[in-house]
Amino acid sequence: MQELSQLHAIFDRTQGYIHRFMSLIQPIIDAAQDEHTRLYYHHILEEEEQREDRLKELIPYLQSLSAEKAEQLSDRELSRLLSDINLERFGLHNFREHLELALYEFRDEETRLDLDGMRATTHEDYLRVKDIMASLSERFSDVSHPALTDHDEGHDIHAVDHLKASAALPKGVASVIKHETSPAPAKKGLTVGSLKGK
Amino acid sequence: MQELSQLHAIFDRTQGYIHRFMSLIQPIIDAAQDEHTRLYYHHILEEEEQREDRLKELIPYLQSLSAEKAEQLSDRELSRLLSDINLERFGLHNFREHLELALYEFRDEETRLDLDGMRATTHEDYLRVKDIMASLSERFSDVSHPALTDHDEGHDIHAVDHLKASAALPKGVASVIKHETSPAPAKKGLTVGSLKGK
Repeated sequence: MQELSQLHAIFDRTQGYIHRFMSLIQPIIDAAQDEHTRLYYHHILEEEEQREDRLKELIPYLQSLSAEKAEQLSDRELSRLLSDINLERFGLHNFREHLELALYEFRDEETRLDLDGMRATTHEDYLRVKDIMASLSERFSDVSHPALTDHDEGHDIHAVDHLKASAALPKGVASVIKHETSPAPAKKGLTVGSLKGK
Repeated sequence: MQELSQLHAIFDRTQGYIHRFMSLIQPIIDAAQDEHTRLYYHHILEEEEQREDRLKELIPYLQSLSAEKAEQLSDRELSRLLSDINLERFGLHNFREHLELALYEFRDEETRLDLDGMRATTHEDYLRVKDIMASLSERFSDVSHPALTDHDEGHDIHAVDHLKASAALPKGVASVIKHETSPAPAKKGLTVGSLKGK
């Protein structure tokens, strides 16, 4: 199954993105001036940590599945694999939204373009995993597989260009609260250059 | 296994809470004056919808497992069950944070107490599922089970009384943005009474 190596590449890439995203967000938590800002970003990072823990198991498992091995999976193993992949499909979707939400925090153009680049690729990866799930579910139609229900369709919010919307808005959520007391804590101890190198 | 009926009760309760939470949040999305507020709450609701979809499968499955049936699960089935329960442990943890974040939105005392009540029970349910997971993992130590790593420990943010912190703060996140243009859109078409009846 060539899909397995595609999935492996996607999950490997998103794992790298998680680290990059964390490097951007952690300084905001550290510099937060109020409990709400701290809770908000802490919450997002915790969800990404949970996703990373799952990927840490799934990526090596996908790697270990040669084409031959994959064909020999029992129905139950295959069903489990489809379910795990489906969960990471949602994980990619939610990560895209975490990236979009972060666009409303950062003011400097380089970080914003970095976030928006990860958002664009994450969206493509999400759509690709969705296609792969549909194709695998069809191919293994006799195996119990997860419902492919999606909650992201028909919502206007997903058609919004958040890079543009966040630039038009004078202030983002956390910045509204924080910048009242402190001008730019988000960049404390952090340069775009230091992140780009990672 | 009496734990199964305890888990069933917990997941059944949280499913009801999801609906109550959604009734509170949807009007905010509908009345949102900017893309960021809309995205923020849309994102939280989408995550809860994903959780609800998973619970819709897990709850009947737990119900179907009599004590006798549970003892006869294969190692693989048991491992899968433990993994599913563990995912919902994180789900409860994340939901508690969604409830805490919402405390920073609402100004009226009844809704705030309702949210804080759900938060307190959700936290207890989360701790209970954590205990059950530890006990089941120990009992079935020969079965592959998920890592019990937690990301919520050692974080000061979890020791904060967000009901108090959100009351002390003059404005919440969404309210900062929205109330600048419109005084109280969050309550549009919504009374506490109409929610309490649900």
